[in-house]
Amino acid sequence: MNAAPEKALVLLSGGQDSTTCLYWALDRFGQGAVSSIAFDYGQRHRVELECARRVAADAGVAHVCLPIDTFAALGGNALTDATVEVDDRASADSGLPNTFVPGRNLIFLTYAAAYAYQHDIGHLVTGIAQTDYSGYPDCRQATIASLQETLRLGMESDVHIHAPLMQRSKKETVELARDLNALDAMRLTHTCYNGRRPPCGECPACRLRAKGFAEAGIPDPLLADP
Amino acid sequence: MNAAPEKALVLLSGGQDSTTCLYWALDRFGQGAVSSIAFDYGQRHRVELECARRVAADAGVAHVCLPIDTFAALGGNALTDATVEVDDRASADSGLPNTFVPGRNLIFLTYAAAYAYQHDIGHLVTGIAQTDYSGYPDCRQATIASLQETLRLGMESDVHIHAPLMQRSKKETVELARDLNALDAMRLTHTCYNGRRPPCGECPACRLRAKGFAEAGIPDPLLADP
Repeated sequence: MNAAPEKALVLLSGGQDSTTCLYWALDRFGQGAVSSIAFDYGQRHRVELECARRVAADAGVAHVCLPIDTFAALGGNALTDATVEVDDRASADSGLPNTFVPGRNLIFLTYAAAYAYQHDIGHLVTGIAQTDYSGYPDCRQATIASLQETLRLGMESDVHIHAPLMQRSKKETVELARDLNALDAMRLTHTCYNGRRPPCGECPACRLRAKGFAEAGIPDPLLADP
Repeated sequence: MNAAPEKALVLLSGGQDSTTCLYWALDRFGQGAVSSIAFDYGQRHRVELECARRVAADAGVAHVCLPIDTFAALGGNALTDATVEVDDRASADSGLPNTFVPGRNLIFLTYAAAYAYQHDIGHLVTGIAQTDYSGYPDCRQATIASLQETLRLGMESDVHIHAPLMQRSKKETVELARDLNALDAMRLTHTCYNGRRPPCGECPACRLRAKGFAEAGIPDPLLADP
C-alpha cells in the first residue's frame, strides 16, 4: 500500500467547472502541490485543449495532455464525430443524450489515477457534478465512490477522488469560483458546445452557464468587454 | 437499466489463457453469440495481435481491435517500451514487476464494456487469474467485482464480468482447454515474453506455460512438430 502524498492532480477540460476545481485544489493543497491533466480524445472543439493549457499556465501549475485515440475508434457520438449533430435531448432508446461516450469519465479518471500513481500523487480532483443533472451515469456520486474503490484495489493505492462540485448547482459553482478568486480565470475557459469564441449563447452549455452566472448575480467575465 | 442479452465479448490477447476463455464462452453462450476484442496498445510483440486475429478466425468469431495510444504516452514500462528490459522480479520500490501498467486491466475492461454497451452485449469474458500470482492487483477477484459494480453504475447496465480462470492454476487451465476441445487452438497462441515463435522456452511466461502443460500431462500443441 502506497502512502498518499498531499499532492493533487486536477482533470482540467478548459471549462468553467474544472477551472473552478483547479482553484479549489490550489486553495486546499497549495501552489506547488497541484498539477493538471487534460485528454485529447479527438474532441471536435480543439479550443478546449488550448483553454486548459492557458488556464493551467495562468494559474502557474504544470499541465500534461494525454492522447486518447480509442474513443474515435469506438466511434459514432456527437462529441467526437463531426458527422453527428449535437442533440442534448435524451435519445428515445437509451434515455441518454447522444453526447454520451459510455464510461467516458471512468476512463478519464482511471488514466488520471495511473498517471498519479506513477507520480506519487494521492488526490484526483474532477469537476463532475450530479446536480444540473445531464443524464450521465458516470457523473454520479455513487459511481465515483465505486470507482475510487476499484482504483484503490486495482492499483493498490489509497487514491482519493474529490468532486467538489458534485452537489453544487451552477449558481453555487459560480459563487465558489468567486470565493476562490477564480473569476478572472473564467475569461480563459471554454463552455460552448458549438465551439465558438465568443460563445454562441444559444447552445445548452452556453444557456446553463449563463443561468448560473445570472442566478449568482455575477457577470460572466468571458462575456465582459475586453 | 438495459437488459443483458445473452451475448458475450471475450478479451482476446492471443495468449493461452484468453484463447481458453474464448472456447469457454463458445461453450456457454454458443456460436454466433460470441465475439472478441483485442487492444493494440503498442505492445512490443505485434505477433500477439496477429495471434488473436488467427485464434478468432479459427474459432469463427467476429473480432475487433481497438487502438490504445495512451499507454505509450504514460510511458516507461517494459511491455510497451523497447528500451526497458523485461524483469519479472518485483522491483524494490513498488513490489510490482516492471511489466505493470497501473490499472491496465481496468482500462481494457472499461473499453470492452463501452464497446459491449454499444453492441448490446451483456457479458465480458477475461482470462485474468489471481492464481499463479503475478503481483498484478488489477487481476484479483475483489478488483474485478468492484469494477463490475463501477461499470454497472457508470454505464447504467447490468454487465457481467466473467473470469473463468480466476481460481484456476495453469495446470487446471490446460485441463479446461482440453475439456473444451480448445487444445488445437493452442497452436495459434502466443505466450513468450521475448516474442519468439517458436517460443524461447526460457522466459518466465514460457516456463509458466510449460509447467502447466507438464503438470496436466498434456503436450503443448504449440511445441508439437508441424
